[in-house]
Amino acid sequence: MNRGGDQPEKVAHAERAGRNGHEGHVIWLTGLSGAGKSTLSVALERRLFDAGHQTYVLDGDHVRAGLCSDLGFSPADRSENIRRVGEVARTLADAGVMVIVALISPFAADRARARAGHAPGRFTEVYVNAPLEVCEGRDAKGLYARARRHEIADFTGLTSPYEPPVQPDVEIRTDQVTVAQGVDLIWQHLQREDRLLH
Amino acid sequence: MNRGGDQPEKVAHAERAGRNGHEGHVIWLTGLSGAGKSTLSVALERRLFDAGHQTYVLDGDHVRAGLCSDLGFSPADRSENIRRVGEVARTLADAGVMVIVALISPFAADRARARAGHAPGRFTEVYVNAPLEVCEGRDAKGLYARARRHEIADFTGLTSPYEPPVQPDVEIRTDQVTVAQGVDLIWQHLQREDRLLH
Repeated sequence: MNRGGDQPEKVAHAERAGRNGHEGHVIWLTGLSGAGKSTLSVALERRLFDAGHQTYVLDGDHVRAGLCSDLGFSPADRSENIRRVGEVARTLADAGVMVIVALISPFAADRARARAGHAPGRFTEVYVNAPLEVCEGRDAKGLYARARRHEIADFTGLTSPYEPPVQPDVEIRTDQVTVAQGVDLIWQHLQREDRLLH
Repeated sequence: MNRGGDQPEKVAHAERAGRNGHEGHVIWLTGLSGAGKSTLSVALERRLFDAGHQTYVLDGDHVRAGLCSDLGFSPADRSENIRRVGEVARTLADAGVMVIVALISPFAADRARARAGHAPGRFTEVYVNAPLEVCEGRDAKGLYARARRHEIADFTGLTSPYEPPVQPDVEIRTDQVTVAQGVDLIWQHLQREDRLLH
């Protein structure tokens, strides 16, 4: 193919950030089923979008219907699920988007792998924390009840461990604060880190 | 978690499109190794980005280093590779981005699967076409030479089939046109389909 003159240059990260007024970023919400990750992700995206950011929510349930439809819930498959979500989040952030990931992601090693390779400050780990009994009491999807009846194997918090983040960037006790207050905590962190639209 | 008033609404597809001035879209470049997919993808992204679109290039080589690092080049692994790229492209388009995919994607069934589920007009198949001998003559990556020495199994065009698109949305004979002319052909198609920024 005759290049016919100057070769165009790849669109650089800084050009996207310049256009959007902010950089791509991953906000990773980890916590038990029922802790409030999905609710927070919707509310956080709404706040960010309405303020002018490019945003997207990657929800664990949604990903399992598409990209990860070949995976089950064994420890190996769960790790692979988290690995792929991490790669997609990285791609979206590379495309300039503020990506909100809502995924139980129970193992510290998997979360560390998702963070690895991001420039410093481009990955925010949010521990969406509520006591197990509170999460089980909510049980919006009826999953705890099914797990208690042994209909679900390897259920995080009951028959499979959850490793809490040791030093999350933000921790939200969803049994103690409202959704709006939880969003505020993340917003304030992003503001301190100078990640928001100017 | 106390919702504390009205629950925020999910950011809808139409809101993103309204903000960006265009919808998310997948432009899928298929063709032999050396046909010019990567070169075209860079030039097309540059044109779209400079005109104000949200853009991103998903390049086969790049994806294999990350999301698909667990896959080889057997027919089954190649299909799985294309499936995952299709899902990531769909996610980026859902996030409002015009995604340019540069991937050999030799099998019609895999390409049909990538297109499936997109709203009509949101997926553009581009056949990046040059005769095998032209592609082999370029051989920028030295892959044809290695395949001829039997160092690469299942090499598309030599030891593995390439199924040309029967009705591509756009066909670009890269042995006959310049890069800029190839970009023009895609641009004109997108314009006719009313997919560009107004």
